[in-house]
Amino acid sequence: MSGFKEKFEEYIKFTEDSLKNYNALSEGERAQENLVTAMNYSLEAGGKRIRPVLVYAFCEACGGDFARAAAPAAAIEMIHTFSLIHDDLPAMDNDDFRRGKPSCHKAFGEAMAILAGDALSVLPFGIIADDSALDPQEKVRIISVLAKAVGKSGMIGGQVIDMENEQRSDVDEVNLRNMYRHKTGELIAVSCIMGCICAGADGDMISYAAEYGYKLGLAFQIVDDILDVTSTTEELGKPVGSDEEENKTTFVTLFGVDEARNIADNITNEAMNCLEHFENNEFLKELTEMLLKRKN
Amino acid sequence: MSGFKEKFEEYIKFTEDSLKNYNALSEGERAQENLVTAMNYSLEAGGKRIRPVLVYAFCEACGGDFARAAAPAAAIEMIHTFSLIHDDLPAMDNDDFRRGKPSCHKAFGEAMAILAGDALSVLPFGIIADDSALDPQEKVRIISVLAKAVGKSGMIGGQVIDMENEQRSDVDEVNLRNMYRHKTGELIAVSCIMGCICAGADGDMISYAAEYGYKLGLAFQIVDDILDVTSTTEELGKPVGSDEEENKTTFVTLFGVDEARNIADNITNEAMNCLEHFENNEFLKELTEMLLKRKN
Repeated sequence: MSGFKEKFEEYIKFTEDSLKNYNALSEGERAQENLVTAMNYSLEAGGKRIRPVLVYAFCEACGGDFARAAAPAAAIEMIHTFSLIHDDLPAMDNDDFRRGKPSCHKAFGEAMAILAGDALSVLPFGIIADDSALDPQEKVRIISVLAKAVGKSGMIGGQVIDMENEQRSDVDEVNLRNMYRHKTGELIAVSCIMGCICAGADGDMISYAAEYGYKLGLAFQIVDDILDVTSTTEELGKPVGSDEEENKTTFVTLFGVDEARNIADNITNEAMNCLEHFENNEFLKELTEMLLKRKN
Repeated sequence: MSGFKEKFEEYIKFTEDSLKNYNALSEGERAQENLVTAMNYSLEAGGKRIRPVLVYAFCEACGGDFARAAAPAAAIEMIHTFSLIHDDLPAMDNDDFRRGKPSCHKAFGEAMAILAGDALSVLPFGIIADDSALDPQEKVRIISVLAKAVGKSGMIGGQVIDMENEQRSDVDEVNLRNMYRHKTGELIAVSCIMGCICAGADGDMISYAAEYGYKLGLAFQIVDDILDVTSTTEELGKPVGSDEEENKTTFVTLFGVDEARNIADNITNEAMNCLEHFENNEFLKELTEMLLKRKN
């Protein structure tokens, strides 16, 4: 398909512009300037912006105007950023670097990083509530699915499962899939779901979008597991071999690289099948392929 | 007024019952059981429950059925609890005890406390979105004011001001009032505002409720400053004299105990005046007086 790259870049630009607008320092917040600086530091650190791109792409795949999805798209990227800031904290994964830059607590101190993450966990709900494009019913529905995807039964629950798995030596495939579904799948799936809601799509479409999202999230994680052993530190932008070093159970430790790649291929094909239910699915198909074949 | 105590206890019971219901472990969350246990541990630690009581009381003061306010009342107590859990963390205030019990990170470890706070910062928005008593317009309005009161220009912003003040020796009354307004005033004011919204009150009533809330929050903080030097550790349930020990600027260090008490009395009177605009204001008047005269 021609135009994939242009559309991808359009979505990214839209995301980054709206992140700036939503988090701009407003009058009367001078005393909190350092907080907003810390929030922006992590928001601007880049990353793949997969989640907002999925919000926009599913809105368009359902025949909607993707500009209607600006608030949920920015919201999901803020939530993702909040989770990375807290994940990197010394009491959590204790990572000093994130995407080649000092992590938030390294740059601003631990207390400020906790508060920057906190502020980024709350702001998204206000942004959706204050949005002028969506109607109240749509906003309430989006906030409902988003809060569930983030909270105790969602991403945060997944971090707890991950943390507890580190203390265990008997992590099996069922457990690993459950952890990935929560830790990664929930935010990816809700991105797709929110895009559909912004386009006024019906329940069936939302189910297919969710199924696609969970599958994409799982394939994404398995590819991560594979890259950790097959990539180079240069390509990956972070040390390879860290899973083995930390004695983590992954799809590679359970099945080996080749079988893990087969599993990722199969799940990606299943995800592709979900896309058949959407009329304008070319962009999403290319995106899916790109994510499976990525090198970092 | 007769019946104050009964009503107060009714509100508290309603709050505690609904906190339990909203945070109950649902099927499929077994893997996250420890997270829910940590969340409940802090939610059940008690405290004055002032904020949910204000939500209910303002709903009734505006002629509404207070049962309509159950979701925002539980939500604000969860937000307050989230802020206490993160405040107590080693990187923040480093408090090992909260209300006579080990603080959340002492009981469950630092990583779990960070995640329990995170989960309690997000759950409230889902609870409001999923509520069956309020209509979508009311929910969106409540989520909008709540997110602002909590976020970078609200309570979290206030924590940043507080943190930065600790590095300064020139904190003056203007700065201190600004810090208290954000750190304490915002959640108290939004409790009053949400109660009015649940009763369908108009903009004027909401303005009076907000003004009352900010004043009550400030008087509450000044009384805290006074109790820190005039109370006993036994009465207060925590060590007295901690402000002086930490070299904090307070209304007592700026004005002395007697003048601080005068200021608190005057602000409380101004708060009482705001209540004159509400028809059923007896409960709120007694509550205001009780909070000014409290011993802990």
